[in-house]
Amino acid sequence: MEIKIMKNILNRNQNKADEVRDLLESKKVLMVNIISSPGSGKTTLLEKTCEALVSNYKIGIIEGDITTDRDARRLQKYEIPIIVINTEGGCHLDSHSISKALESFDLDNLDVIFIENVGNLICPSSFDLGEAFKLALVSTAEGDDKPAKYPLLFREAKAIILNKIDLIPYSNFNYQSFTNDLRRINGGIIKFDVSCTKGNGMNKWFEWISEQIKK
Amino acid sequence: MEIKIMKNILNRNQNKADEVRDLLESKKVLMVNIISSPGSGKTTLLEKTCEALVSNYKIGIIEGDITTDRDARRLQKYEIPIIVINTEGGCHLDSHSISKALESFDLDNLDVIFIENVGNLICPSSFDLGEAFKLALVSTAEGDDKPAKYPLLFREAKAIILNKIDLIPYSNFNYQSFTNDLRRINGGIIKFDVSCTKGNGMNKWFEWISEQIKK
Repeated sequence: MEIKIMKNILNRNQNKADEVRDLLESKKVLMVNIISSPGSGKTTLLEKTCEALVSNYKIGIIEGDITTDRDARRLQKYEIPIIVINTEGGCHLDSHSISKALESFDLDNLDVIFIENVGNLICPSSFDLGEAFKLALVSTAEGDDKPAKYPLLFREAKAIILNKIDLIPYSNFNYQSFTNDLRRINGGIIKFDVSCTKGNGMNKWFEWISEQIKK
Repeated sequence: MEIKIMKNILNRNQNKADEVRDLLESKKVLMVNIISSPGSGKTTLLEKTCEALVSNYKIGIIEGDITTDRDARRLQKYEIPIIVINTEGGCHLDSHSISKALESFDLDNLDVIFIENVGNLICPSSFDLGEAFKLALVSTAEGDDKPAKYPLLFREAKAIILNKIDLIPYSNFNYQSFTNDLRRINGGIIKFDVSCTKGNGMNKWFEWISEQIKK
């Protein structure tokens, strides 16, 4: 019974996701769905990415948050269009809310939309939002066992950013164990080791995401 | 329609939670429901707590995990009863799975049961498992804005452990802002500032939880 209900929700989500994907392809807009635990650094990643890319590309942001517009306010300084979706307790975004959010953008005037999903390593991974791809973000402070313990996101994502590598010396994060688990789950995943706040490794990420936008 | 379904699930959960709570009260077993993001340090907290308390109290553990028994294996060394609940993708524990897990314990021979919920700052907060109280855990590496952005858990919890205080010098965590938000959401919450790995502040936690068990 419960499984059936879940299936209906997922089916309805999928149909709308396919519509969203078709629309964005026709408008040549890349949409990236960023998923992580709370506090892995999604907003800081977006701040640094906007800073690096905003002079070359037209960027839009969809901010998924349970409540508050704190993340959106951190991004206002880039003077780009930002839509906040407050889920009011909901643990993920779905394609219907994304479809509505897209109505507020001028899609003919955008190259890329970054979705900052609700901070949750589990539920958002099950929902296709019509994105070009999912980007996983995980911080070294969360420990090296996250891919093994929460495999779905890491299996679904095209790329992963390992953030806060500057904290490795102060923690018991085992880089080799993390990488081995990750490769076992998703051998083809593209990986960036960075510190969003200190700047380490960020240029590689900027280059790669720029290429994806230009494609 | 969806709201109605959610209500039914929550009602069924609540009835069973009340049963569980009655059972545990009659057996004088304290059950603590530990909730946090992935990687905040739930398992490390349990390791240190078992180490400190296992000679004085009879401890049982329920490990909620999406997949794997990694956390349970880390706790095996204390030779205490541990039940693993693999949710197979599910984002929270519910009172029905807890009720079943309790059948495997000898409740006459236990003082306290710690539940390590699935790593998720959102969904588990909505589910009463029949616990005596919820314990929130949050790491400084997640940033100071967690109470404001994910208020439900912090409103529901009796106590909060702020973990990884040893990382504050290497991050932009604003302690005052964290504390102000927390007090605004839940003025009566009991707070412990600790580093589970380094040991700072742990004695206060051990004393307090011992008192709760003895009550």
